Amino acid sequence: MSAPPDDHAPGRRRRGPRSAGTDTRAALLSAARDEFAARGFDGATVRRIAERAGVDPAMVNHWFGGKEALFAATLEMPLDPRAIRSEILGGVPDAIGARIVGRFLTVWDGGTDGRAADGGAMAALLRSVTTRDLAARTLREFVTRALLRPVVERVSPDRHAERGALVATQLVGLAMVRYVLRLEPLASAARDDVVAAVGPTVQHYLTGNLGSTNPDS
Amino acid sequence: MSAPPDDHAPGRRRRGPRSAGTDTRAALLSAARDEFAARGFDGATVRRIAERAGVDPAMVNHWFGGKEALFAATLEMPLDPRAIRSEILGGVPDAIGARIVGRFLTVWDGGTDGRAADGGAMAALLRSVTTRDLAARTLREFVTRALLRPVVERVSPDRHAERGALVATQLVGLAMVRYVLRLEPLASAARDDVVAAVGPTVQHYLTGNLGSTNPDS
Repeated sequence: MSAPPDDHAPGRRRRGPRSAGTDTRAALLSAARDEFAARGFDGATVRRIAERAGVDPAMVNHWFGGKEALFAATLEMPLDPRAIRSEILGGVPDAIGARIVGRFLTVWDGGTDGRAADGGAMAALLRSVTTRDLAARTLREFVTRALLRPVVERVSPDRHAERGALVATQLVGLAMVRYVLRLEPLASAARDDVVAAVGPTVQHYLTGNLGSTNPDS
Repeated sequence: MSAPPDDHAPGRRRRGPRSAGTDTRAALLSAARDEFAARGFDGATVRRIAERAGVDPAMVNHWFGGKEALFAATLEMPLDPRAIRSEILGGVPDAIGARIVGRFLTVWDGGTDGRAADGGAMAALLRSVTTRDLAARTLREFVTRALLRPVVERVSPDRHAERGALVATQLVGLAMVRYVLRLEPLASAARDDVVAAVGPTVQHYLTGNLGSTNPDS
């Protein structure tokens, strides 16, 4: 099940023989973990992270490309928000739901960096989210700003925040059932079957009629 | 936000002055927690629970009405599987999804027994599920046997296990986003708005076309 050990994961580029560069990168990651843990995603700043690491703030852009990607790197997620957004928004509009579910499964199944397909790192993350309030807030802020909001604002006709939250219910629940609770047949289902079943729901939340109880919000 | 302190919750009937009866009930609850923790929901037996408690197995039916309700009582959930099933299956077929979501929110919001509407007990349960493997297995077995399977087998045309798991993704995700991650506007949304938005998804998973990738499974 494992892909070749090829370093496609974001935040792993340019890794080579140990050098002052890799020390800087490691120091930034460590400082970022502390800063995000102390202030959440929104409260953390690139300047303070660089200060904690004792390096120039420009090093954050050099090594990670910005706060979002730095945060993703601290999670050890194969997740580059910018690349994910352009992949999701790049194809035919009717299949955005399917592309979101497909990309989501790829991240969890670890398809891009050779992790075993057990959602291990992500399941551990989800566990920590449910047990630590700050972890929940940090991840919520990150997912909202870096992923949900930009997509919803591009493709949804109205009720952006509500649609984003509804998309989140379906994705978080899919992760819980497939990777944490491991309910069959979903735990073992092929990726394409999951995309076919769940993609239309995400599409519906993004662009469909949400029900008439609260039509103006 | 709190209802009158009226004892509607299952497993709380017949509570009165302390008596041999309340001792028996408490002993059964304690024994049941140990037995479910040791063997999961499927592995636990009424006979062994009664043995652990040092009482006759008939006391389980007398006090709780069976293993399902006893398990629900150990969770301190306002949840009587039999009553929930008949409520869900009792109305017009097209609104089963809405009734499931509505009842689910009532359980989490604690509407039937005066708990504060913060999903407190249930959120704690969900946290424990994500951090303890046996808790996950036990809850999965219980929810599957007592709730998902009976409903799906009555109302779904095919692919019962798959449809049940898909319903679970939507409900678990709704709980995570509304009560654990507390993503707005869903965390503060009125119950009816949530039912209007999410009910059709559950209905679709129960009775709709699931996508064509795997039409025969």
